[in-house]
Amino acid sequence: MNLRSRPEEMGFPSHARVVEVGPRDGLQSEPEFVPTEEKFALVNSLIDAGIRHLEVTSFVSPRAVPQMRDASEVLSGIDRTRGAVLTALVPNARGAERAIEAAVDAMVVFMSASESHNRKNVNRSRQESLAGFGEVCRTAETSGTAVYGGIATAFGCPFEGDVPVEDVVDIARRYRDMGITMVSLGDTTGMATPPLVRERCRALRAAVPEIDVALHFHNTRGAGLVCVYAGLLEGVTRYESSIGGLGGCPFAPKATGNICTEDLVYMLDECGVETDVDLGKLIAVARRTEATIGRTLPGQLMKAGPRLELHAMAAAATANG
Amino acid sequence: MNLRSRPEEMGFPSHARVVEVGPRDGLQSEPEFVPTEEKFALVNSLIDAGIRHLEVTSFVSPRAVPQMRDASEVLSGIDRTRGAVLTALVPNARGAERAIEAAVDAMVVFMSASESHNRKNVNRSRQESLAGFGEVCRTAETSGTAVYGGIATAFGCPFEGDVPVEDVVDIARRYRDMGITMVSLGDTTGMATPPLVRERCRALRAAVPEIDVALHFHNTRGAGLVCVYAGLLEGVTRYESSIGGLGGCPFAPKATGNICTEDLVYMLDECGVETDVDLGKLIAVARRTEATIGRTLPGQLMKAGPRLELHAMAAAATANG
Repeated sequence: MNLRSRPEEMGFPSHARVVEVGPRDGLQSEPEFVPTEEKFALVNSLIDAGIRHLEVTSFVSPRAVPQMRDASEVLSGIDRTRGAVLTALVPNARGAERAIEAAVDAMVVFMSASESHNRKNVNRSRQESLAGFGEVCRTAETSGTAVYGGIATAFGCPFEGDVPVEDVVDIARRYRDMGITMVSLGDTTGMATPPLVRERCRALRAAVPEIDVALHFHNTRGAGLVCVYAGLLEGVTRYESSIGGLGGCPFAPKATGNICTEDLVYMLDECGVETDVDLGKLIAVARRTEATIGRTLPGQLMKAGPRLELHAMAAAATANG
Repeated sequence: MNLRSRPEEMGFPSHARVVEVGPRDGLQSEPEFVPTEEKFALVNSLIDAGIRHLEVTSFVSPRAVPQMRDASEVLSGIDRTRGAVLTALVPNARGAERAIEAAVDAMVVFMSASESHNRKNVNRSRQESLAGFGEVCRTAETSGTAVYGGIATAFGCPFEGDVPVEDVVDIARRYRDMGITMVSLGDTTGMATPPLVRERCRALRAAVPEIDVALHFHNTRGAGLVCVYAGLLEGVTRYESSIGGLGGCPFAPKATGNICTEDLVYMLDECGVETDVDLGKLIAVARRTEATIGRTLPGQLMKAGPRLELHAMAAAATANG
């Protein structure tokens, strides 16, 4: 029963790019420093599984985020022979210089769509953030490095609640005016819903059609993959996720953060959306990551196994409707 | 930004019924007996939250499923003044008699779409199951009690793998011929995918249009709510779920079972699909259920809180893209 080959019947695109953000967004919230060698191993095993887009680190202040203090070193240990595109967050021109020295393929500037979250997160107004990015873009241009733009709280703000779609569109326009061609909408605290995904994707397509949109969902309220479904129906082909569901939500200690890469790839596979990722290898990476981190991660597929991994009749259930 | 009022723009129905199966399907896999008074409290608090369809117990052999040994008693303690429709599983005519004595509103017969799972689960061939249901239906008819039909492994079998859609349709036809008007497709071990949901819903609509279809998904591979999304797009308006995500998967001890009622209601609410359930009360029930069960349940919303529950700026994140 091969239903996998007809994504267009579902209204889905035929291909999607899975962008792994676990090494950055996932590890960032880990209190224990993960040794640099383990970061190499994680990223390289993801590349070996077929992932070709990875956000690998963040050139922020080592004091602010000690987990990312080895940013330059991390880049030096990654397998660059297989065409993987490596990106890193940069908060300012100094970060951009470090990122260029470390030879990232693209640097990611980021700000929040809501004023209060931007102030809380980076201690600047949105206008100040945008002004700083101009400098980052000029620095990047000198080295020919691409710049991507992240928009956090794009589907809602934990301090302000609903975020006007116009604010998201305005930032995307400003990004476009700086020469940025790829914009990621971040669902920072898991507030995205299918209608919001639909609305925001359509608004961006109408206002800045030249921008390539990525979607970055969190599963904090259980709707992460549902929002991917909504994104696929809008034709979006780039999704950010974290191996094993690594990472959390600063506002809900027990809740999950990023959607899980292997659960995402499983869903895309089953819907016939080609990702060129080896799901078996990905599950193995997720299980190793869980062992490295030393606690249960939210990913489901690594616990249940692939869909057609059959069980012997000896493994039993009792009268179950 | 009220996007909630336009489910038809998403291709969704305007209303959906949420069928709570936690007291039966969820508790069934709990090794510790849950006191009957706590079962009353659970069901009654769900009714108070607005749930009007509940599968509350199972008239199986108390030896086979000790957790359900208080089936008749459970029915006696439930608030029946608010129009809640109470159903219970019945495996055979003896169970049907007990269910009628306990005054269930509907009894649910169940079998698996795959031969090996049916044998493993109820120790009968599929033909033997169907033959027995004829007797159940005749017993039910004498008391005017409705009979619903469950089809387990409707999206895949842990022993056989893919399950032909024809086998699901054949059982639905046999159910229809017995006078059953409501059929639930059970995703027993979390093998449902959007294309399978689409295919099976369409096949049933074509073959047995007079049958009302319910969908019962498990989140074992993270795709539970994604399959609800696919079901909504097919116009299905009845979904079975379990408060807090209570229940597990017998083949994957660490994986989750049933989709979670409050996460489902949250998603439906956000998509503008009316359920007439009070989400705040539901979250409170989920949290109490978690406390009663004494371990963390998979539901996300009860950890993160409602979408627009705002946080003070003092609760902080660090530089997070």
